[in-house]
Amino acid sequence: MAGTNRSDENLSGGPAIILVEPQLAENIGMVARAMANFGLGDLRLVNPRDGWPNEGARAAASRADHVIDAARLFDSVEAAAADLSYLLATTARPRYSIKAVRGPDSAAAELRARIAADRPAGILFGRERFGLSNEEVDLADEIVTFPVNPAFASLNIAQAVLLMSYEWMRSGLGEHAAPRFQAPEIAQAPKDDLYRFFEHLEGSLDETGYFFPLEKRDTMVHNLRTMLTRAGFSEPELRTLRGVLRSFERHARIARENEA
Amino acid sequence: MAGTNRSDENLSGGPAIILVEPQLAENIGMVARAMANFGLGDLRLVNPRDGWPNEGARAAASRADHVIDAARLFDSVEAAAADLSYLLATTARPRYSIKAVRGPDSAAAELRARIAADRPAGILFGRERFGLSNEEVDLADEIVTFPVNPAFASLNIAQAVLLMSYEWMRSGLGEHAAPRFQAPEIAQAPKDDLYRFFEHLEGSLDETGYFFPLEKRDTMVHNLRTMLTRAGFSEPELRTLRGVLRSFERHARIARENEA
Repeated sequence: MAGTNRSDENLSGGPAIILVEPQLAENIGMVARAMANFGLGDLRLVNPRDGWPNEGARAAASRADHVIDAARLFDSVEAAAADLSYLLATTARPRYSIKAVRGPDSAAAELRARIAADRPAGILFGRERFGLSNEEVDLADEIVTFPVNPAFASLNIAQAVLLMSYEWMRSGLGEHAAPRFQAPEIAQAPKDDLYRFFEHLEGSLDETGYFFPLEKRDTMVHNLRTMLTRAGFSEPELRTLRGVLRSFERHARIARENEA
Repeated sequence: MAGTNRSDENLSGGPAIILVEPQLAENIGMVARAMANFGLGDLRLVNPRDGWPNEGARAAASRADHVIDAARLFDSVEAAAADLSYLLATTARPRYSIKAVRGPDSAAAELRARIAADRPAGILFGRERFGLSNEEVDLADEIVTFPVNPAFASLNIAQAVLLMSYEWMRSGLGEHAAPRFQAPEIAQAPKDDLYRFFEHLEGSLDETGYFFPLEKRDTMVHNLRTMLTRAGFSEPELRTLRGVLRSFERHARIARENEA
């Protein structure tokens, strides 16, 4: 349907849309268009298969050039989410992970409450073929899934982004008085801090020989990350936890040095 | 995103989706897919540019074959809507027509009420290039329009059908739609387990010399207990965390024993 496109009047703000290893340039373009339709502008790409910038994406964006031009490229989900304090993962199927699961409307309301409180937030969308890995879902605070027909549940990523963008716009409309959500009391740390804590912890545990047998390391890391993500630690809390880790490390090092 | 496609379990009922002179077979296919995603099955085509049936549409439908196979061809909007008692027209712009204008959620609620009362209903979607003519809008009872960014209002017909189909599904789920799957409820461990974990942790940290200066020990313990209570750990999770502690302790002990 026809409409106007005046880039100087595009809305801004809203969650970051993070596409993980998108394969088709056309999908990236359609995502940009869907974002523009509903006033979103922060597109982040993790290792798009065909590189970036990509003129095919621009062509499919139907003049959502401001979104394409502002898109940023990252080499990992961790890097793409580093400055965000709240991260949702979209999934089509139940996961074994113990995380809260929201519908798109509840997810949009939560995003709006957090962003209104100046806490940057984003949404992960997986690959066309197989979505997000379990490790990628682990990096998110909560899961969002769509109320689709269970017999035909496959949603294209551009469609999934469209629905979330629509719900974002909808959640800001006065007449659909969404219940007032309290801004979270705890200012969650940027994801970068959380991920660096995970790496610190896992590195320390490699030292101690905790991950035994080694083939269970991935599962053990998954369990630790899941339970420690759920706490929603703040920056000072993560500093405290890293202090705890350093204390254990120093203790073992002193014992070793005395030995030497 | 991946999902299941079992055509024998597709939902039925819901409004007729009427595409008026669609130009691109790919759009018809994507419309069929969007309908299948949200349980709609009655697709009606008014003079598609490239004729019907169309294998390009089937290819773009991503296995929504049951919708493509059941699609019906008409030579006028009047004929396509003949058996319906309530007809909505989608438009992107204000019209001169004095008709009630609904948002997608209100439109879906109205459709559901009428269809539940056995009054067949449908939605008109216009051409890719210029939507519906004023005469076609006149044939409808009411207008539905989407809450898009005014600076970037152009919605593809497949996107418009997706949003209306989504709202149709959503309108059947009740006010606070439950997502299709829920995280297993985390059974928080009895407090006794949590407190014994705290004592274990604090005892270990006494060993490492973490609590320094000692007069700050109470505050430091308070901070640790506060953040670790908030996660609501389950019994298995507390066992994991105690395993982590024991791993650090064993590591330091081995270092000491080597020294001895």
